[in-house]
Parts: sequence; structure tokens; C-alpha cells
Amino acid sequence: MGRLTVRRPLLRIDPGGATRCQDILAAEEPLEIRVDGTPLSVTMRTPGHDVELAHGFLLTEGVIGSPSDVLSARYCDSRDDEGRNTYNVLDLALAAGVEPPDPSLERNFYTTSSCGVCGKASLDAVRLTTRFPPAADTVTVTPATLATLPDSLRAAQKLFDSTGGLHAAGLFTAGGELLVAREDVGRHNAVDKVLGWALLDRRIPAAGTALMVSGRASFELVQKAVMACVPVLSAVSAPSSLAVELATDAGVTLVGFLRGETMNVYSGSQRIDLR
Amino acid sequence: MGRLTVRRPLLRIDPGGATRCQDILAAEEPLEIRVDGTPLSVTMRTPGHDVELAHGFLLTEGVIGSPSDVLSARYCDSRDDEGRNTYNVLDLALAAGVEPPDPSLERNFYTTSSCGVCGKASLDAVRLTTRFPPAADTVTVTPATLATLPDSLRAAQKLFDSTGGLHAAGLFTAGGELLVAREDVGRHNAVDKVLGWALLDRRIPAAGTALMVSGRASFELVQKAVMACVPVLSAVSAPSSLAVELATDAGVTLVGFLRGETMNVYSGSQRIDLR
Repeated sequence: MGRLTVRRPLLRIDPGGATRCQDILAAEEPLEIRVDGTPLSVTMRTPGHDVELAHGFLLTEGVIGSPSDVLSARYCDSRDDEGRNTYNVLDLALAAGVEPPDPSLERNFYTTSSCGVCGKASLDAVRLTTRFPPAADTVTVTPATLATLPDSLRAAQKLFDSTGGLHAAGLFTAGGELLVAREDVGRHNAVDKVLGWALLDRRIPAAGTALMVSGRASFELVQKAVMACVPVLSAVSAPSSLAVELATDAGVTLVGFLRGETMNVYSGSQRIDLR
Repeated sequence: MGRLTVRRPLLRIDPGGATRCQDILAAEEPLEIRVDGTPLSVTMRTPGHDVELAHGFLLTEGVIGSPSDVLSARYCDSRDDEGRNTYNVLDLALAAGVEPPDPSLERNFYTTSSCGVCGKASLDAVRLTTRFPPAADTVTVTPATLATLPDSLRAAQKLFDSTGGLHAAGLFTAGGELLVAREDVGRHNAVDKVLGWALLDRRIPAAGTALMVSGRASFELVQKAVMACVPVLSAVSAPSSLAVELATDAGVTLVGFLRGETMNVYSGSQRIDLR
């Protein structure tokens, strides 16, 4: 439960060249919250303070109002492939008289997270399966081209300068040409708008493209890239540990901290043309 | 559908004093996505490109794979209090042979948004009701105290400097004393952890406190403050339009762009002690 950070190897590129090194990433793992044994919510969270997280969630969803509304909170016996308890399933028992959330109601309780999954009711369903696997895409992109993406995206952001409060996503060719840019208060919505545009423009599977996002690279954004067969995902800020894990498994090139001519390549570095 | 930004009055405070002016905020409204008439997802989004958003969502959830999988997309006749169509409910008809998402499956499709609601299946349920209304809280806080909160929170962030990828939330007394700080890959999780701590420490309703968050102030973060009876919410970055609307309605003091001694007060300015 002290898994707050994870070390990962990466390829660091700057004007001086490329070097293999290690980075410390924020840990991201799914937490399934159960109430009286019934799965209620899955959120992608940084492990730690899970009991507080579950109490705060139930408080802010209107289920509980005092500590005595919860009789107990305990981790369920969920095991990973190697038989270790994952500590990723937490069951809260409500006190007598506390109305449990009714999962049959229209109003459900799937937790969000700014880099979370979109409310899966089971940890097993966190990973979707794509009909367009991006792993075989042999496209390459140069660091010089990648370095142009943030400014191109920013130039296409019509709203940011006026509000200071919007996320952006842009789809580019491997040569750095902007195909479409979209903005939204929600990071995932900006990506959905871009990929929906690509679908309607008959560009899915999006082979040979690079998707650039304005903020961090979360697990769910990598998942969206995989589902649309986008081979390269780059972000201005840090990826989470699970984002790197999924990108590695799915064969997506994941670039983070893309700032100026400096960038970290966390997976799929065979697509980075270093010549 | 061009409601990308909204103008809002605010009280701007800097070392030179306080002035009433206007700010342009990113518009945030709920979009309910229906498939063949059945509500599937509610996401808090910036209006515009909703058809793309719905296509991208269904693509990245594995429901559709080509434009021909969708026969039509049309706004439902949802009306606001004044009888105008809200353009906030979009219904997609799937082509014959396309497997619709089964809402009875464990794996549900509630959309996230980095400032979204936690997957409510109906627009009517977007606003929760609190048992601890914060409107009556007469606490006041000085701009000088507010100006100290970002640095106090940052100092308590153990992980940010190592990973560059975590959100933080902190609960403070009105005098600026830090009660608790928590970090998470998800903004809402960081707030849930803080408020869960407060609940377990028997501090809910959290009268007389100020909640500080590292990023933007979304609708859902204001909602969490309301549910915990936090009278003052401050953020380093911009609020969304719906965040300001809810804070105004619920009587929460909402401070945005809190940087150095400069800040914007979007609602509840009676709690700002300008003497």
C-alpha cells in the first residue's frame, strides 16, 4: 500500500542525443469499492489512503454522513497472477439503518478520476480489446517532428488563451501535419472528439498517426489510442505507471514530458527515428 | 452549440486591491449519450462537436468500428426551464447487426471527464443533495491567508517533485493551518481522500475550512465541497462555468487562479475579508 511511485526504464531524448535511463512514475492502479459485498465503483487511483478514499467517495455521493455509518472497511482477498493480494478491492460494511446505494437505480456510482477508466464495474473489464491492434504499425517519427507537435496543437487551441481552462488533443500525421484539434473541459472528451472525427472521416484504424494531448498521459488515454489503432501517443506531462504498462503491452509508442526538443520515450522506441 | 465560453462576473484581488470585473470561462454542460433511445452515459463536456464526441466514445469503448455502424445521430427534444432545447441529449441509432452495449452487463459505460460527474445515468441526477448545506457558514478568510495555501499544499506534496504527475488537495483552517494533504493521479480521488480523512476525524460538516486543489475547479469538485459542507474552495487554475454556477447556488466561496497574491473570487465573496 506504499506503492506511490514506480520506477520505469525510458529513452530520454534531448538535443545532445538519446540515453537510456530510469524515471519515477506516479503509481496508478484500479480500486474497486464494494458496499456490503456489492461492487459499486472502480476508480484508477494512486494506492494509499484507500479507506479515506472510500469514505470520502461515499460521503460526497450522499451515502454516508458520519464515521459511524460505516461498520468496517477491509480489503477483499483479490489475488494477482502470482497469488499476491492486490489490495485493490475494498469492501465497506454499512451500519444498520444506513440506506445502501441501489445499483439498480438509474443513478449509478461509477467513480471518475482525471486519468481514470470510464467506470467499469469489474477490475477484469478495465482493459478493453481492440479490433485494430496498433502493435504492427511500422511508422516512424523523428524527434524533430515530435518537438513541433505541442506548438502546433497550442496554435490550434482557440479557447485556451481566453479561458485558461481547457484540455486539447490533436491528431497528426507522422510528418507533423495537424489533421484535427479539439478542446474540452475534459481530457477524455477532447480525445473522443478527435477520434470521433477520425472515424467519421474514415481514418480508423488511424495507422501512421500521432495523437498529442495537452496534459498527462493516463491509462485511459492510452486505451483510447489503442482502440483507434493510433501508434504514437505524446503528452506534455507525465504518464502514469499503468499508462506505460498498457502502452508497452499494446505496442503503442508513448512519449511524455514533450517540451521543446526534450522528451521521454516510455515504450515503443523502435518508432523513434534517431538517425 | 457554439457555447464554448461563458462570461461571468468576479472579484479580482491583487496587491493593489479588489476590483469587480468579468472573466471568460470554459463552458461545461452535461451531455447524455443514448444508443437507440437508451441512456448510456453522461459526461460533463464543453458543448460543440458532440456527434464526434459520441462516435469517439463508442469507438474507444469497442461498440463501433466504422462510420456505417451508426445510422443517425440526433439531439433529443430536451428542454430547459425556459422551454429551449438544451442540445444536451444525443441519441445514436446503430446499424443492423451492430451489437448494442448491454446496460445490464457488469461492464457499464459511464463516461468520465477530467472535471466530470461520476457517471450519472440521468441529467436530472447530476446534482446531488447535501445534508450539510455550507451556505450559512459565516467564516471569513483574508486574501493574505489564501495566498499562502498553494505553497503550503505544495510543501506537503511528497510525490510531485519526483514524478511530476500528481494532483493534490489540502484541507485548511480559515487561518491557513494545513489539516491534511493528499495526492493522487486523479483529482477527484485526492479530494475524496481529504474529505474521507475529515469524516473519519469527525470534522464533517467541515465548517470553517478551506479546501485547496492543485489544478482546475470543476463542477464535480465543487459538488464534493458542497457535500462535505466546505465553505471555501480555492484552485490554482480556472473554474468551469458549471463550477461557478453550482458554487453560487450552493453558497460556496469559489476562488480560482490563486497565484501569489493574485486571485479571482467567482462566488461567495462575502467570506473574503478585505479589511
